[in-house]
Amino acid sequence: MDSDFSFLCYMNSPLKGIITPLITPLANYKELDLPGTQRLIEHQISGKVDALFILGSTGEGPSLSYALRKELISRVCEWVDQRIPVLVGITDTSLEGSLEISAHAESAGADAVVIAPPYYYPIADEEIVLYLQQLASGLSLPFVLYNMPSHTKLHLSVEIVKQAHELGAIGIKDSSGDMLFLNSLLNAFKESPGFSILSGTELFLPETIRYGGHGGVTGGANLFPELFASLYLAAVSDDSESILKLRETVSMIYETIYRVGKDSSRFLQSYKCGLSVMGICNDYMAPPLQSFGPAERKQMETYMNEFTRLT
Amino acid sequence: MDSDFSFLCYMNSPLKGIITPLITPLANYKELDLPGTQRLIEHQISGKVDALFILGSTGEGPSLSYALRKELISRVCEWVDQRIPVLVGITDTSLEGSLEISAHAESAGADAVVIAPPYYYPIADEEIVLYLQQLASGLSLPFVLYNMPSHTKLHLSVEIVKQAHELGAIGIKDSSGDMLFLNSLLNAFKESPGFSILSGTELFLPETIRYGGHGGVTGGANLFPELFASLYLAAVSDDSESILKLRETVSMIYETIYRVGKDSSRFLQSYKCGLSVMGICNDYMAPPLQSFGPAERKQMETYMNEFTRLT
Amino acid sequence: MDSDFSFLCYMNSPLKGIITPLITPLANYKELDLPGTQRLIEHQISGKVDALFILGSTGEGPSLSYALRKELISRVCEWVDQRIPVLVGITDTSLEGSLEISAHAESAGADAVVIAPPYYYPIADEEIVLYLQQLASGLSLPFVLYNMPSHTKLHLSVEIVKQAHELGAIGIKDSSGDMLFLNSLLNAFKESPGFSILSGTELFLPETIRYGGHGGVTGGANLFPELFASLYLAAVSDDSESILKLRETVSMIYETIYRVGKDSSRFLQSYKCGLSVMGICNDYMAPPLQSFGPAERKQMETYMNEFTRLT
Amino acid sequence: MDSDFSFLCYMNSPLKGIITPLITPLANYKELDLPGTQRLIEHQISGKVDALFILGSTGEGPSLSYALRKELISRVCEWVDQRIPVLVGITDTSLEGSLEISAHAESAGADAVVIAPPYYYPIADEEIVLYLQQLASGLSLPFVLYNMPSHTKLHLSVEIVKQAHELGAIGIKDSSGDMLFLNSLLNAFKESPGFSILSGTELFLPETIRYGGHGGVTGGANLFPELFASLYLAAVSDDSESILKLRETVSMIYETIYRVGKDSSRFLQSYKCGLSVMGICNDYMAPPLQSFGPAERKQMETYMNEFTRLT
Repeated sequence: MDSDFSFLCYMNSPLKGIITPLITPLANYKELDLPGTQRLIEHQISGKVDALFILGSTGEGPSLSYALRKELISRVCEWVDQRIPVLVGITDTSLEGSLEISAHAESAGADAVVIAPPYYYPIADEEIVLYLQQLASGLSLPFVLYNMPSHTKLHLSVEIVKQAHELGAIGIKDSSGDMLFLNSLLNAFKESPGFSILSGTELFLPETIRYGGHGGVTGGANLFPELFASLYLAAVSDDSESILKLRETVSMIYETIYRVGKDSSRFLQSYKCGLSVMGICNDYMAPPLQSFGPAERKQMETYMNEFTRLT
Repeated sequence: MDSDFSFLCYMNSPLKGIITPLITPLANYKELDLPGTQRLIEHQISGKVDALFILGSTGEGPSLSYALRKELISRVCEWVDQRIPVLVGITDTSLEGSLEISAHAESAGADAVVIAPPYYYPIADEEIVLYLQQLASGLSLPFVLYNMPSHTKLHLSVEIVKQAHELGAIGIKDSSGDMLFLNSLLNAFKESPGFSILSGTELFLPETIRYGGHGGVTGGANLFPELFASLYLAAVSDDSESILKLRETVSMIYETIYRVGKDSSRFLQSYKCGLSVMGICNDYMAPPLQSFGPAERKQMETYMNEFTRLT
Repeated sequence: MDSDFSFLCYMNSPLKGIITPLITPLANYKELDLPGTQRLIEHQISGKVDALFILGSTGEGPSLSYALRKELISRVCEWVDQRIPVLVGITDTSLEGSLEISAHAESAGADAVVIAPPYYYPIADEEIVLYLQQLASGLSLPFVLYNMPSHTKLHLSVEIVKQAHELGAIGIKDSSGDMLFLNSLLNAFKESPGFSILSGTELFLPETIRYGGHGGVTGGANLFPELFASLYLAAVSDDSESILKLRETVSMIYETIYRVGKDSSRFLQSYKCGLSVMGICNDYMAPPLQSFGPAERKQMETYMNEFTRLT
Repeated sequence: MDSDFSFLCYMNSPLKGIITPLITPLANYKELDLPGTQRLIEHQISGKVDALFILGSTGEGPSLSYALRKELISRVCEWVDQRIPVLVGITDTSLEGSLEISAHAESAGADAVVIAPPYYYPIADEEIVLYLQQLASGLSLPFVLYNMPSHTKLHLSVEIVKQAHELGAIGIKDSSGDMLFLNSLLNAFKESPGFSILSGTELFLPETIRYGGHGGVTGGANLFPELFASLYLAAVSDDSESILKLRETVSMIYETIYRVGKDSSRFLQSYKCGLSVMGICNDYMAPPLQSFGPAERKQMETYMNEFTRLT
């Protein structure tokens, strides 16, 4: 695939390290918060993350109109300006829609696309393989598979991931939270070191690296890119002391920041709220998700302060 | 709502009887099967169903591009030409997308829209109410709520349905297959006879009518509109003998036609395949769903013949 | 099976009508409320139910020691004194335990046993068939199969029920609340009218009878045996007016009495509390279930009064 | 609690290291394989595990009659003869049953009991707390809580575990396979180092130790006690190289031995079959579980040989 070229410019294949699943700064449900987007990009790059992944679940991709998704892709590619790779979520219920976003991503200069199963109809293994075949033949950028059963209703099997690999997938992001599955993936691709295994569960980052994986797609890196970049480096160099110390901080985020609110998407709410508290971007969330109310914001302020003091 | 006017032209409110959740005849994933669509409409109207509901789950709405959805709306409204009401599914993960389809439906002359919760993020009761508020304020057509937990991951509560009613919903289509929930709905709206309670489960049609409901959104009516229209009339007139006889036929469909194939969407596959066997339209299914293969088609032919012979 | 004899003494096979899944009146977790048990039996027989089923889910069978289960069996058989059939739940996680209870039931004069799958290990279809083979060969009383997926984690398939039928099962009690499954059962055994199809969901009683079933195992009959006995008779004679009127009352129970409390076993709590309000027996529940507290009891008193006034 | 005394004799509290959840060698469903039990105990002790846990899920406790459970307890305590602690599973659906087994365990000289929620009725947090209160007041041995949601239908919350701690629990065995929950437990009891956190998921053993836990209840130790004992020691001394090497072996067991068969309890089947292949004990399984058939046994023989060759 010639588009692998772009990856080779930045970093040695395979895709590895910390990939931030970027939130989408919004002014309202029809408009981007453009200055916020620009600040967020600089926050990430100065925090030394390895890549950005836009329009995923954290990026509220499915809630945005196609026009808005395309605008975001263009702006992010322009502002990142090839300093780090940009991956674009093209997951959609419509094949035509996925291809349209992918084509735009390519023309805007993105480096890869990320695809989870179409998520309206409950489908089975055989159906997703046929779907990936149809899709893959229409893509011109490399693609990363995305396992997100809580949202798509389909927990990809190791077998499906292997078939996706044969269809050209360059890696998988596993957000199932199922460490036994992640372990099966690590076993299954031991002989394919070029295939990236990325954990979407922040607390699993050290184990992912320890047992042969390549990195993490860590939502918390929206707020604290350096923390996750450092944890990745500590894990790569098997520095037990640093790992324990940094993971302790991540664990503290789980026990504080990620406990604010009660919606199932409170993680996402906390990223946007926290970034707003930091003065980086707006905390508006696209329907059906809602921004935190004043009480939750106050709690977030307290936790963000504590966090800054401790680290 | 002045748009109630259109309903009053055709039939006494509330919405009742047999509403066919129309399959979308497709030539391929980017193109409608237009002659098939026209034949299917005439098949329905001559079968005396009470309304058409396009772009629902059965209509593969979420799998189609916006352009294709709009074209279908325009063509169906044009060809139905106000002989029966046309309802349009606007369920989407993007609020802007839902509003865009709704606006098109209104301008094309549709009578109402149908809305299930946005289906990517797992959401809770409070979030869906806020969402419905935002949506309802942007709609100019009356709306019917749609409970489809197997696909949207959210089983609407009676409380939510009551709130939707206050926001202007004119009825609910319940496709949960949960007869105890349907019964709770019938109890809850006993004093609101203008609010339509429609079952999406074909076998529950007689009970829905018996206990105070208004009709059914019965996928099998794609194939056999007269059967369901007759069962509805038998139920309304509490003609036990006819009910038993007709329901026996519906039950036979479950034990034959709906058992063909093994995908979770085999019902939908069987509608399209059966219509293709009848020479009405193409059986192409939009990805990620797949048409029946030759073996399943052969089985369908046998069952369709038996069915014709017996009825 | 010679033990079919006892059934023939009371009623024409197959098992049909209203079978009360009797609660177990308890003084504490080690002792029966014997006077309460005697009063409850008379309450049932004077209410004209067709049979009693003791030690089921409603009877808290799994929470009781073997000694207590045996004592209950002996007392109930003695006090019923062959006026109506007595069925005994022998569901257990230990095969030896099930056989021990079954042997005691036979010697005490019970008429049949009822068996759900062993419920600790998650098991699959093949395992339950082998289990039923082992069990059936050790039983001397006829057995009824019991589908209770919410408690046993296994939703029996129609295929399993057919195999149980071949192993000698005389019927099935379906408490899945899944009316489509119940319908499949009714279809599957259309040609085996001697095999009893009993619904465990009270609101499905009229439909069960309408479409060929034999009766209901209705927990509410603990409180109101006449109501359910009358509804059964109305259903058998297809008396639409009575069905609607009586089912309306059952429906009212769902909206009032069954809404008291918030535990998943609140139905069971309401039976015991209601019987205690009526002065029939103690409302003590065996751990891990709990009796209603004072607030719930007060609500129950109000509802029981309303109910008495209205019926 | 004076019974803590026995623990102090063997090892410093808290409970830690490798605790084998012992399978129960059976001759048939009513009889123990006594010589096999004796050999298995010696296999464990010579393999240097830290404790034995009998009558858990792996020990098929719920499938055995009370008499058989008591006999096993007596024999194991006698044969272990205080060389290592013996823990006894008392999980049951009957409170009286649990207390009876616990009393027997104490008189036989066992060191602690292990309790999961009663597993027939679906219960909620408030109900399990009340249950634990009733139970704890009747126990004379220390107790370990056991989280086994796949079998009991209840995923204990951190809050419940804290309340159990206050009621006297000396630790928790978590077999949920949910590493995020395990992490929350480790966080929650950071200030209570005497409360044992034990993972029931073998692959999580190194992480459990790394992040502050105490050990593992590892079913695979039935077959390979030394492997798990060594992995524990490597984890305690943070010896990365050994951890990787030994965990690689455990991982290989997952990809081979644990893949034999297709029942959900195939892990348990593989333990018994493997021990039978090693000549240690009978592979009979109590109903409803089944022993491996000849094909699976052949596969097991191959894998066991490979394993012996590689380690």
